Amino acid sequence: ISADLQEHCKQYKLPQQSLDWFTKSLDYNTVGGKCNRGMSVVDTTSLLQNKTLDPKSEEYFRPALLGWMIELLQAFFLVSDDIMDASKTRRGNPCWYLAPKVGMIAINDAFMLEASIYILLKKHFRQEKSYIDMVELFHEVTFKTECGQLCDLLTAPEDDVNLDNFNLDKFTFIVIYKTAYYSFYLPVALALHYIGAATPKNLQTAEDILIPMGEYFQAQDDYLDAFADPEVLGKLGTDIMDNKCSWLINQALKQVTPEQRKLLEDNYGQKDSAKEAKVKKLYHDLKLREFYEQWEEERVADLRHKIDKVDESEGLKKEVFEVFLQKIYKRTK
Amino acid sequence: ISADLQEHCKQYKLPQQSLDWFTKSLDYNTVGGKCNRGMSVVDTTSLLQNKTLDPKSEEYFRPALLGWMIELLQAFFLVSDDIMDASKTRRGNPCWYLAPKVGMIAINDAFMLEASIYILLKKHFRQEKSYIDMVELFHEVTFKTECGQLCDLLTAPEDDVNLDNFNLDKFTFIVIYKTAYYSFYLPVALALHYIGAATPKNLQTAEDILIPMGEYFQAQDDYLDAFADPEVLGKLGTDIMDNKCSWLINQALKQVTPEQRKLLEDNYGQKDSAKEAKVKKLYHDLKLREFYEQWEEERVADLRHKIDKVDESEGLKKEVFEVFLQKIYKRTK
Ligand SMILES: [Mg+2]
Ligand SMILES: [Mg+2]
Ligand SMILES: [Mg+2]
Ligand SMILES: [Mg+2]
Ligand SMILES: [Mg+2]
Ligand SMILES: [Mg+2]
Repeated sequence: ISADLQEHCKQYKLPQQSLDWFTKSLDYNTVGGKCNRGMSVVDTTSLLQNKTLDPKSEEYFRPALLGWMIELLQAFFLVSDDIMDASKTRRGNPCWYLAPKVGMIAINDAFMLEASIYILLKKHFRQEKSYIDMVELFHEVTFKTECGQLCDLLTAPEDDVNLDNFNLDKFTFIVIYKTAYYSFYLPVALALHYIGAATPKNLQTAEDILIPMGEYFQAQDDYLDAFADPEVLGKLGTDIMDNKCSWLINQALKQVTPEQRKLLEDNYGQKDSAKEAKVKKLYHDLKLREFYEQWEEERVADLRHKIDKVDESEGLKKEVFEVFLQKIYKRTK
Repeated sequence: ISADLQEHCKQYKLPQQSLDWFTKSLDYNTVGGKCNRGMSVVDTTSLLQNKTLDPKSEEYFRPALLGWMIELLQAFFLVSDDIMDASKTRRGNPCWYLAPKVGMIAINDAFMLEASIYILLKKHFRQEKSYIDMVELFHEVTFKTECGQLCDLLTAPEDDVNLDNFNLDKFTFIVIYKTAYYSFYLPVALALHYIGAATPKNLQTAEDILIPMGEYFQAQDDYLDAFADPEVLGKLGTDIMDNKCSWLINQALKQVTPEQRKLLEDNYGQKDSAKEAKVKKLYHDLKLREFYEQWEEERVADLRHKIDKVDESEGLKKEVFEVFLQKIYKRTK
C-alpha cells in the first residue's frame, strides 16, 4: 500500500525529501494499531461470502485494502486529535506531531493520510459498480466523525470544566458520530458494498445494530477506564482528570444530590490524583459498577434481540453481528 | 450555501452549540476573500456557453456553486496553513485559530470546510454525468496541493534557514502543486466538466496553459512582494523575512558570486529589517527587476503563442485563457 502511494507521488515528480517524509508518516501512523477496524472488513466479507480467504489471494487482498483505508481514516483522525488534545503519547510512542522535526507539519500529514484513501479507492476499485457508493460512504462517515469531534471539543474542553455542558444526549451524539460510524458501521457497510449486497435494507439493518453496539462499546470503554484493574486493562484510566464527557460522569450527574454535584464540580477534570480519587469514591458510592453491569445486560439483550430478527434474505448474516458482539461483551481490556 | 450545509447537519441532530460554531467558521473563513477562483468558474462557463448568465438564474447558480466549492477548498487550505505557519492575520482579521476560544479546534473546522465540498457536490450534482469526475478532480487537486504544501514546509521552514535547500526545481514544484492546480486549473476543469466538454484533449490543453500561467502568476507575486510600492500593493512584502522559497531568491542564487551568496546566507529569512534591506539591495545590484521584466515578456509571449494554437473544435475557447492572462499581465497588486 505504501508502495502504491509512493508510486502515485512519483508520477508528480515529488522531490525525494518530501516522498521520504510522506513514507515515514504513513508508516509511523498506520502501523502498530490493533487493526480491529481494518480486519473487520476481511472478516465480514469472509462470513458474508461463506468462505475462508487465503491471505495470499486477491480475494483476501481487496477487502484487506478496504480495511487499510479505514486504518488510514483512523490515522487521519488520531494524528489530528492528538494535536487538538495536546496529547503526549499514542500507542506507546510519542504522538506524530511531537516526533523530531514534525510539529505542525503533522496537520498536512493528516490531510495526506485522508487523501490516500481516495487515491487507493480510485486505483483499485474504479471499475466496481459500487465505486461511487464507497467514495460517498467515506465522505459521509468522515463528515459525521468530524461533527462528533467538534461536539466533543466544544463540550469537554480540558481547560474549562463546566459540568453544565454535559448531558446524556450530547454523550450519545459524540459517541455515535465520533466513534460508532467509522469504527462499527463503516467496516460492515464497506464489506456489503464490496460483495454487492449493499441494498438499502441491509445498510439500514447494519446501521440499526452497529450504532447501538458502538454506543455500548464506548460506555464499556468509559466504565473500564475507571473500574478495570489497570494491570489487566494495560493502561491507566485518565478520563476523570481529562474532563471527559464519559458515560460514567453523565450517569452520575443524573443521580447526584446537590452536595454530591458540588463534589463533582470541585474535583472533576483536574490533573490532581487526590481529586480524581474523590470522584472515583463517589462513583462507588453511587454504585455505578452495579448500575453499569445491569445496564450492560439490558443493552446486550436488546442487541441480541435485534440480531435475532435480522432478515438474511438479501445476503446479510446474523453471524456478522454476533462476531462483533462476542469481541466486545465482557471484554476486560 | 451555508443554509444548505446547516440543513444537512440538522439531519444529524447536531447539537445547537456545534451547529452555531460550524456556521460561524463557514462565515469567517469563506467570506471576505477576493473570490477570484470562485468567480472564474462562472466567467469560464459563461464564455464557453457564449451567453451572459443572469445572477438570479439557475444557470448562474450552478457554476457559482462550483465556484463556492473552490472557495471552501481554499478556506480549508488557508485555515490550516495559518496554523502551520504560525501566522497572525489573514485578510486583515486575526487568523481563525487565533479568534477567541478557537485554538486547535480550527484543525477540525478546516476538515469540515473540506468535507462541505462533497456534501454540496452530492446534493446538487449527483445526477450529472460528470459527478464522479468532479469528485475525483477535487480529490486529485486536493492531494496535489497537499504535496506542494509538504514540499514547501520541508524546503522553507521559518526557523531553519538553509539556502542549500532552495533551487528552481523545488520552487517550480511548490508553485505548481501548492497553488497553480487549485487556483488556475481547477476552475476551468470544473467548468469544462459542468458544460460537458471535459474531453481528455480539452483538459490537457487547459492544464498545458494554466499551469505555466500559475507559475508566471506566482513569480510575479514574488516579484511584487519585493519590488512593488506597498501603497499600491496594499500590503508590506514579508517574503525575505519569512525565508520564502521565492522566485527572486532562486534567481538570485543562480547568479551570485560566493561573496554575495555569503551575504544572502547571513541576511535571508530573519525578522530584522536591516538584514531584509541588505537582501533587497543585493536584488537591485543583481538587476532582478530588469531580469524579471524581460522574463515576464518571454513567458507572456510563450503563453500567447500557446493560446493562439488552442484547438476550439471540442468546445474549448481561446478567450477563456485570454481573460485569465489579462487579469494577471502587468497587474500591480
Ligand atoms: Mg484525544
Ligand atoms: Mg479528542
Ligand atoms: Mg477510553
Ligand atoms: Mg502561510
Ligand atoms: Mg505556508
Ligand atoms: Mg506573495
